[in-house]
Amino acid sequence: MSETVTMEKIVSFCKRRGFIFQSSEIYGGIRSAYDYGPLGVEMKRNVKDEWWRTMVHTRDDVVGVDAAIIMHPRVWEASGHVGTFNDMLVESRTSGRRYRADHLIEAATGRDDIEGLSAEEMTEIIQTDERVKDPLDGGRDFAPVRPFNLMFETYTGPVKSPENIAYLRPETAQGIFTNFKNVLDTSRVKVPFGIAQQGKSFRNEITPGNFIFRTREFEQMEMEFFVEPGTDEGWHEYWLEERWRWYTDLGLNPDNLRRYEHPKEKLSHYSKRTVDIEYDFPFSGWSELEGIANRTDYDLKRHAEFSGQKLEYRDQQANRSYVPYVIEPAVGVDRITLAFLVDAYREEEVEGETRTVLKLHPRLAPVKAAVFPLTKKEPVSTVAKKLYDDLKGDYRIAYDDGGSIGRRYRRQDEAGTPFCVTVDFDTLEDKQVTIRDRDTMQQERIPIEAVRDRLKALISG
Amino acid sequence: MSETVTMEKIVSFCKRRGFIFQSSEIYGGIRSAYDYGPLGVEMKRNVKDEWWRTMVHTRDDVVGVDAAIIMHPRVWEASGHVGTFNDMLVESRTSGRRYRADHLIEAATGRDDIEGLSAEEMTEIIQTDERVKDPLDGGRDFAPVRPFNLMFETYTGPVKSPENIAYLRPETAQGIFTNFKNVLDTSRVKVPFGIAQQGKSFRNEITPGNFIFRTREFEQMEMEFFVEPGTDEGWHEYWLEERWRWYTDLGLNPDNLRRYEHPKEKLSHYSKRTVDIEYDFPFSGWSELEGIANRTDYDLKRHAEFSGQKLEYRDQQANRSYVPYVIEPAVGVDRITLAFLVDAYREEEVEGETRTVLKLHPRLAPVKAAVFPLTKKEPVSTVAKKLYDDLKGDYRIAYDDGGSIGRRYRRQDEAGTPFCVTVDFDTLEDKQVTIRDRDTMQQERIPIEAVRDRLKALISG
Repeated sequence: MSETVTMEKIVSFCKRRGFIFQSSEIYGGIRSAYDYGPLGVEMKRNVKDEWWRTMVHTRDDVVGVDAAIIMHPRVWEASGHVGTFNDMLVESRTSGRRYRADHLIEAATGRDDIEGLSAEEMTEIIQTDERVKDPLDGGRDFAPVRPFNLMFETYTGPVKSPENIAYLRPETAQGIFTNFKNVLDTSRVKVPFGIAQQGKSFRNEITPGNFIFRTREFEQMEMEFFVEPGTDEGWHEYWLEERWRWYTDLGLNPDNLRRYEHPKEKLSHYSKRTVDIEYDFPFSGWSELEGIANRTDYDLKRHAEFSGQKLEYRDQQANRSYVPYVIEPAVGVDRITLAFLVDAYREEEVEGETRTVLKLHPRLAPVKAAVFPLTKKEPVSTVAKKLYDDLKGDYRIAYDDGGSIGRRYRRQDEAGTPFCVTVDFDTLEDKQVTIRDRDTMQQERIPIEAVRDRLKALISG
Repeated sequence: MSETVTMEKIVSFCKRRGFIFQSSEIYGGIRSAYDYGPLGVEMKRNVKDEWWRTMVHTRDDVVGVDAAIIMHPRVWEASGHVGTFNDMLVESRTSGRRYRADHLIEAATGRDDIEGLSAEEMTEIIQTDERVKDPLDGGRDFAPVRPFNLMFETYTGPVKSPENIAYLRPETAQGIFTNFKNVLDTSRVKVPFGIAQQGKSFRNEITPGNFIFRTREFEQMEMEFFVEPGTDEGWHEYWLEERWRWYTDLGLNPDNLRRYEHPKEKLSHYSKRTVDIEYDFPFSGWSELEGIANRTDYDLKRHAEFSGQKLEYRDQQANRSYVPYVIEPAVGVDRITLAFLVDAYREEEVEGETRTVLKLHPRLAPVKAAVFPLTKKEPVSTVAKKLYDDLKGDYRIAYDDGGSIGRRYRRQDEAGTPFCVTVDFDTLEDKQVTIRDRDTMQQERIPIEAVRDRLKALISG
């Protein structure tokens, strides 16, 4: 990306061009919630479709599911979320504010070994270390540190009693594990195989932030790949490479990508090894795009224990049953959409003017092509309209007859439209059109009948 | 559909073939919540993509958005949901059960004019009409009727105080109205134009039911089409016809469709006229698939009032501003998926056996084609695998080498796969394959290189 890309610039660009708006903006907005506008929704759809295409449709060893957001509450006991999916919070009695205890201590003391401590240990530090103060008023009267569960709670039915509590899922993965048996019984799959899912998850984060990087409501794409124990480490490497390649195939600059190996002592309770693919965001530095975890047989065994069901795989040939290990590539749609946006964003000097251009991979570009009639008048406009009608349908195509061709190019450059097709007076004679490439700005004359195939080649390529 | 299609048959079929499972089934399920399995998720994706293709991509007067599920709470005050989105409930003091008051009275008295009455009026009837009894224990000791709001409530942040209340949206429409100004400012749209959205909504229904027809969590596809006041009635008719045609183009039997005109006195508070497209479900009779409402300028005016923002359209040519009227085609993905399923479901006698077949439109079919090697052995399997690799990617393609060809046909018939391609020993010589049509069961020999184009033609056709 350019050196000059700041968060402010991206947020303002996203709003101005209809990629991303603050949610409920006319009511002053709602903190850390965003809506996708006309260009943003197309781009996000493309990111999701591309993941589904490569992770499900091009593979004969992966199938999909789409599970409900509100699941049985026991699911979250089995998964460990009811007990351990907590932030440690401390309330300052002087200001009434609540803070994440680890952040408060780390900021005051410079220590970086706080995250794994118990509530009692953090309380002890806060009570005794005089450097820890309420950032708002400097007060040192704190209540004991308490765990705060990050799952959103609600109630089904009219009575708000404990037996009617329901949670908004904090991850899509559990909707896959609970369907493991159903998929085995109905889909003729054989280990190794994967189950993929896309959908919204919710986490009541105390400190969301950085635009769409971390929001309380977010969209996930997770795939659980079930393998024979003992082959799990090899499959982990396989998926690390596959997922890295997915980003670079879609045009992310590999210089902005790196692997981050979670240290053993900071692994989640279910994980044998977790590696993140990180992206070097201009505003926050290296941050997680995707986590690829070896979840072992933890989840299936827990659900077997809590549900009383047998969650095993029967290997017919070897005539034995076992609980598979699971490799999980898990990604947030919103944050990778942000990565694709900032990676593609350029401000270039062209003939003394600044051109803003989104150099998105054609598969991700919200609009695949724009058709320009040189004039609004017939018959040029009729020919252009017919071309537009031929192209539209499976893709979003733009028709733009407003302003000079130069202005229209700039508009489409900002939208990331990979090519623009101009129908002019010569077209009426030679049946050719001018096709202009977003990135090279080169123009070429090609027959009007060749446009459709050119577009297809460009997108598949 | 066949006369013999019962709810039990469809539910069991959907589970057996991996279309739809009960949610959290290993935990005994959760009432009225369902998960889509490997075939179901593909079909549901196709239904959604087909709607987006025809409602957004093929039109130059409609753009999309994707708004957050949790919006600013004021949105639901402006929309009227906080005040009026209620079911009237009555608690029986003998059993402790809660009932919908209108249902209780209607069942006991046969009256059908209850729905619009106030809580006081219903209480009066329940207290005085001795036919009204607790269905569970026959008791007649009822608390006063109370409105119960159907929005799911939760809290953002760690403190469960009134200012942190948040609602799960009960409809996607409001995410469109609140973005009306943003879309106008960033998208060069001109009235008449539409904004479309797909996404989950939630209603804490007291009596959900009929499989995926009515669930508390459901997926909507709504489009708000903004028009000049005075042209709204014409546009309403236009969308009624467009939407009817959408269903019949996708193969729904028009004999199972009808229009239902909402009587004036039962219209929602925002509606000038609402017409449903109904489907004749074999288990519940005529039921709403889609509601097409003339919402007038109600929503934009309410949001203007509650937000203090000007939500008007400026007609540059006529040099005047006005608040547009809105025509809204609104549909539930889950219930139309159910309609497509039952409409396509057939049990046919073929050579003395019953063949179950889903005669789905190829665009909706979860799997577009299946490739069968006559034998698992090379080189037949190599040729078949290569054909599979050529076809897969943009669609789900199956590769099936298990059991007799006849059994494989039956398996794909049940999945709704429109055609099956068999690679046999002759293929090695003549480079031709046998292509078999799901509906006619006719077989044909065609060159292996022609399969891809045939598939494309079939899907677009």
